[in-house]
Amino acid sequence: MTMKRNKITIVGAGFTGATTALFLAQKELGDIVLLDIPQLESPTKGKALDMFEATPVLGVDANITGTSNYEDTADSDVVIITAGIARKPGMSRDDLVATNAGIVKSVTEQVVKYSPNSILMILSNPVDAMTYVAYKTSGFPKSRVIGQSGVLDTARFRSFIAMELGVSVEDIQGFVLGGHGDDMVPLVRYSYAGGIPLEKLIPAGRLEEIVQRARVGGGEIVQLLGNGSAYYAPAASLAQMTEAILKDKKRILPSIALLEGEYGYNDLFMGVPTLLGKNGIEKVFELELTADEKTALDKSADSVRKVIAVVEGR
Amino acid sequence: MTMKRNKITIVGAGFTGATTALFLAQKELGDIVLLDIPQLESPTKGKALDMFEATPVLGVDANITGTSNYEDTADSDVVIITAGIARKPGMSRDDLVATNAGIVKSVTEQVVKYSPNSILMILSNPVDAMTYVAYKTSGFPKSRVIGQSGVLDTARFRSFIAMELGVSVEDIQGFVLGGHGDDMVPLVRYSYAGGIPLEKLIPAGRLEEIVQRARVGGGEIVQLLGNGSAYYAPAASLAQMTEAILKDKKRILPSIALLEGEYGYNDLFMGVPTLLGKNGIEKVFELELTADEKTALDKSADSVRKVIAVVEGR
Amino acid sequence: MTMKRNKITIVGAGFTGATTALFLAQKELGDIVLLDIPQLESPTKGKALDMFEATPVLGVDANITGTSNYEDTADSDVVIITAGIARKPGMSRDDLVATNAGIVKSVTEQVVKYSPNSILMILSNPVDAMTYVAYKTSGFPKSRVIGQSGVLDTARFRSFIAMELGVSVEDIQGFVLGGHGDDMVPLVRYSYAGGIPLEKLIPAGRLEEIVQRARVGGGEIVQLLGNGSAYYAPAASLAQMTEAILKDKKRILPSIALLEGEYGYNDLFMGVPTLLGKNGIEKVFELELTADEKTALDKSADSVRKVIAVVEGR
Amino acid sequence: MTMKRNKITIVGAGFTGATTALFLAQKELGDIVLLDIPQLESPTKGKALDMFEATPVLGVDANITGTSNYEDTADSDVVIITAGIARKPGMSRDDLVATNAGIVKSVTEQVVKYSPNSILMILSNPVDAMTYVAYKTSGFPKSRVIGQSGVLDTARFRSFIAMELGVSVEDIQGFVLGGHGDDMVPLVRYSYAGGIPLEKLIPAGRLEEIVQRARVGGGEIVQLLGNGSAYYAPAASLAQMTEAILKDKKRILPSIALLEGEYGYNDLFMGVPTLLGKNGIEKVFELELTADEKTALDKSADSVRKVIAVVEGR
Repeated sequence: MTMKRNKITIVGAGFTGATTALFLAQKELGDIVLLDIPQLESPTKGKALDMFEATPVLGVDANITGTSNYEDTADSDVVIITAGIARKPGMSRDDLVATNAGIVKSVTEQVVKYSPNSILMILSNPVDAMTYVAYKTSGFPKSRVIGQSGVLDTARFRSFIAMELGVSVEDIQGFVLGGHGDDMVPLVRYSYAGGIPLEKLIPAGRLEEIVQRARVGGGEIVQLLGNGSAYYAPAASLAQMTEAILKDKKRILPSIALLEGEYGYNDLFMGVPTLLGKNGIEKVFELELTADEKTALDKSADSVRKVIAVVEGR
Repeated sequence: MTMKRNKITIVGAGFTGATTALFLAQKELGDIVLLDIPQLESPTKGKALDMFEATPVLGVDANITGTSNYEDTADSDVVIITAGIARKPGMSRDDLVATNAGIVKSVTEQVVKYSPNSILMILSNPVDAMTYVAYKTSGFPKSRVIGQSGVLDTARFRSFIAMELGVSVEDIQGFVLGGHGDDMVPLVRYSYAGGIPLEKLIPAGRLEEIVQRARVGGGEIVQLLGNGSAYYAPAASLAQMTEAILKDKKRILPSIALLEGEYGYNDLFMGVPTLLGKNGIEKVFELELTADEKTALDKSADSVRKVIAVVEGR
Repeated sequence: MTMKRNKITIVGAGFTGATTALFLAQKELGDIVLLDIPQLESPTKGKALDMFEATPVLGVDANITGTSNYEDTADSDVVIITAGIARKPGMSRDDLVATNAGIVKSVTEQVVKYSPNSILMILSNPVDAMTYVAYKTSGFPKSRVIGQSGVLDTARFRSFIAMELGVSVEDIQGFVLGGHGDDMVPLVRYSYAGGIPLEKLIPAGRLEEIVQRARVGGGEIVQLLGNGSAYYAPAASLAQMTEAILKDKKRILPSIALLEGEYGYNDLFMGVPTLLGKNGIEKVFELELTADEKTALDKSADSVRKVIAVVEGR
Repeated sequence: MTMKRNKITIVGAGFTGATTALFLAQKELGDIVLLDIPQLESPTKGKALDMFEATPVLGVDANITGTSNYEDTADSDVVIITAGIARKPGMSRDDLVATNAGIVKSVTEQVVKYSPNSILMILSNPVDAMTYVAYKTSGFPKSRVIGQSGVLDTARFRSFIAMELGVSVEDIQGFVLGGHGDDMVPLVRYSYAGGIPLEKLIPAGRLEEIVQRARVGGGEIVQLLGNGSAYYAPAASLAQMTEAILKDKKRILPSIALLEGEYGYNDLFMGVPTLLGKNGIEKVFELELTADEKTALDKSADSVRKVIAVVEGR
């Protein structure tokens, strides 16, 4: 029999990790292991137990456990890595990159040791570079190392457009390429409301303002919260990508994928439209770009490369 | 036309309040206003926006807004009150009661001013007494002032039984009467797995241990978290009760209700089985109790009365 | 209190009507009345009861009743009209139109008598003309008389594209204008997979074949079934439109709407992109068309007009 | 990687089979093969295609195909057998049994040939005996041959109780043992509303009437429909049991299981409470019975044995 409950590990039991666990449990996608560092083992167990105690009310079956021991993650089907620190006052951006690269490297080594056949999904920041770190560390084929950025970036864009037009969020479609957040390259001509190109519904200037708001959407939340960063929309994005894989849905979703020639780039992890199924990234879709779009994407690629240079100590 | 989106206000945008908002949004039960004090208005707006940005991915339509202004809550159908402080070191239990009673009174006054036809659902602690405060302050009929405790208490009990038996949480049914938490009076003979009385599946001693674990289940999470208290299971409980009301489902769920003769008590808010529908608590179900159960319930009632005496400055 | 369960009547308890009832019950959108002619009252009651007996297992609350008495439909919020006969051997197309026009007129009169504030949704065939009949008969404002065609036509198109590309149906978007079925005018340039225009993913010739298959998609099912016509996809379409209205989702979905100048037509019911919310059709979206598209749409409009001429005995 | 879409075959594409396919597709439990006899291949393909065309609107991914070729069912995880004829005028009950036994035997041989590791779920009537036939024919271990009756019988009972009390169907729990339908042995003392024993809520005489209505609930639908038998509630029941298995939910649901000593019976297939998980029936729960209950169950067992005697030509 091939039937078994899937096993999903989430490394990093902060707000994003825990909320991702919740969404996965609600979808009954499998059993969930929340892992954090030994010093946080007790609260990690507390969150997991509290969440499990919600399952009778939610009407779902999912074992949810907290741990700091990688042995408990053995034979996971998907491992979601949200570990990493936020930038602290006085910390340079390069220091942040170096610190998180160290964390992601160490986490990946442990994960791979116990789940050599898993698919890795990366959220740690800066995410394009951290996906690269996980790829290099794991030795996994490129299809099994996936970064999350575009689902979140387009979710923000879709939200703002829905607000602007007063229509259902379900009917808005957005499209981004390139690095996460500030570096994202929105393809407005591939963005629609009910299939109607947004350019026909919203004046160009206003549309550009909305694009810009989406680009710095993560920062807007950070500023509002005052202490911490967004977690609901990031967690929903991770859960959607995980569902696409575990149900082999063959969804077309933007992911951070290793490019080997696509869009003219090599050895670069960057956000592109991908096909997500049981094998992870099963395909990268290439689009013709206008000259302006290509220029913007090149700029985005340069940003990613600079961060990777920091990672590699170049 | 009678169709409109329901409006639900949640007072207190901490973890429980925010997680409740999430569950309500996922159920597309209506538009949601998260309200907290002016000093927390910015993070409240941040949580609401982050959550709204998740809706395109979750595939649901719900406006979710953060505010500190009660005007924004006008004409709510249901108002969920989670406001209140946690007990701090050096604070007496009576001081806590007095402080939270003041908060719930003040909140209720504002809520009632703007939503005179709403149904109030109370989670603030100590919840039996705070439901009483909301009732007295609001002047609402008893059917429209409801406290949450039993859904949560039984959720914990059900979780522990499911773990013990290795079966689906969906098939475990629990039953409690009386005050929340330590004072709860579980009716084990009305608790089942797949309809089979638990007493036939689990040895008495072990079952008593599980009952006791459920009784202090809130404390277990507090201890594990180290800093804060449970929110996933409480939020799921609030959302289930709200759904029962807004969809007029006529669910039989345990609620904290004003007793006027039922079970031999008067002018007392305590956990009993109730019928929840569009009018709030539409019925209280009375059960015959054994002498032991009645004694335990009397003790629970005394505890609630003592807290109410503190509230009333007696 | 404004809370109450919605009431939805479905006239015509054949496969499509009954399956629509099932989808609505699963969404817990309200209580459902299935109505058919007196001769079919018993099987209508049978279907309703069988469906109600499924609700404990489905975990939903919805009263579902069968009747042949319009009094039982009183105060419905939405009334879905699926009544009408299928073309029989030897029957001319004009005879079919006249017969069904008579049925829809008679049904509408009864419906309007008991539910003067309802929103009407029409599926009876030929649907563009039957929506016109319901509009004229009801005296309702145009926003409250809606025909279903485009959601179904695009569902078929989306299915075929998903098959062709081997991707999730969730990521395919289609776009049609004009009359139902054979007369539909697909706007392929507004049709996408994961936001990518289909023209970039599928060769033009193949895409045209798929468009053509969608155009005659209803006939394909009729031919396969041998006896009867499609009901799963039509019912899902009706349920989605009803949900958009009852939850006031403001969805952008294609509907058959009364055109009063839009696209250059007047006094014509035809499929166009609309905004569906609590008021019914809240807006018609206009698109610029190419000359070819306009020509095709004119042809489609002519077909609709010819049927209406039959209806009006001209 | 262990991830793959499950494959579910449904033999018999009548109303029950097709509706079961729909429910399974809605749950995204896997890809679905609807199989019927060669003479019905075309309508079977028609139903499957119509259903697939609904998936974009339902927002689910499931391949649904129709066939008459058992090769297409290869490597199914679960096979649901609904095949069989209804009793025709002038046909003796024994003739019906013999005919359906032949059909189930032939179907099982084909199914087992192509899906030797599958779990079989039987709905064909008379279901207790047909489950026995499938068991004998397949040579499968008893855990992998499961008959459906109790979920449906209790669903009807729950529906009638919910109607009687005016409460949510979600809060009613029923309990039956023994053969399907007329022979079912309801254990009213294990039946509850919100955990409260029904005996405390409904007078004994009225409760007995409701039990009796549930016992002949299938016949009530047959009589109302005039032509055909129930399919919504049976299909929902099959889908719930299949979900329990494919998600390894460890649900406690009544199933027709092979008894080897349980309840004092041997070599008998009869309805008992079971644990359903990835291995099929993972456990049979035994209850102490009162003398009256045991007498009723003996009678039910005798009925099943008589049918099996017919099957075996004794």
